[in-house]
Amino acid sequence: MDADAVAKAFVEHYYRTFDTNRPALVSLYQDGSMLTFEGQQFLGPAAIAGKLGSLPFAQCHHDINTVDCQPSGPQGGMLVFVSGSLRTGPEEHPLKFSQMFQLLPAGGSFYVQNDMFRLNYG
Amino acid sequence: MDADAVAKAFVEHYYRTFDTNRPALVSLYQDGSMLTFEGQQFLGPAAIAGKLGSLPFAQCHHDINTVDCQPSGPQGGMLVFVSGSLRTGPEEHPLKFSQMFQLLPAGGSFYVQNDMFRLNYG
Repeated sequence: MDADAVAKAFVEHYYRTFDTNRPALVSLYQDGSMLTFEGQQFLGPAAIAGKLGSLPFAQCHHDINTVDCQPSGPQGGMLVFVSGSLRTGPEEHPLKFSQMFQLLPAGGSFYVQNDMFRLNYG
Repeated sequence: MDADAVAKAFVEHYYRTFDTNRPALVSLYQDGSMLTFEGQQFLGPAAIAGKLGSLPFAQCHHDINTVDCQPSGPQGGMLVFVSGSLRTGPEEHPLKFSQMFQLLPAGGSFYVQNDMFRLNYG
């Protein structure tokens, strides 16, 4: 397994899904998955998808600047660290963000065990 | 253990040490610890401390904006996600950064197993 390639593929999939079919993100999380979004904490797929679905914009477009990854732990997990910008409409200014994920293997694929997101205000 | 308090104490200790006694950071890492610094990878305390010690500025001052943390794995680890800004001299502009750590327990304390750092360019 090329960890960098897996991380990049995950990141592309995650943000493409976020930008085109946000409710489908629920399938990337499992019971016990955690999201910390701008300091607010959510546990489990329903709460996480509920938060992401309730964000107050209909459109979103993420542009990724950097993707770093490291192996994590004896379970074959992976830490993925992303920086980029997002735009919530064609007239809106881009907002810089950073986000980190811990991915754990499950059934030949990976799910998101840990997810922390922050806007980086100017 | 209050994980948030441990994370905040670690973050204060890490950046105060970085800003006042950078060579002492070596004691926070162990064999197998990983640093990804602006995309460059370093393994183990000697390589990590060598990189941090070779950064081309004598002074540094970090200001922390946000610290988020989540528990990580059955070993009692912790993921810590930081955003802030740093200044490499009184005349220099602040540079925004984000950084993530995985801390693992060892001997009643924690060490840094994973460390990823990125400047967030404007």
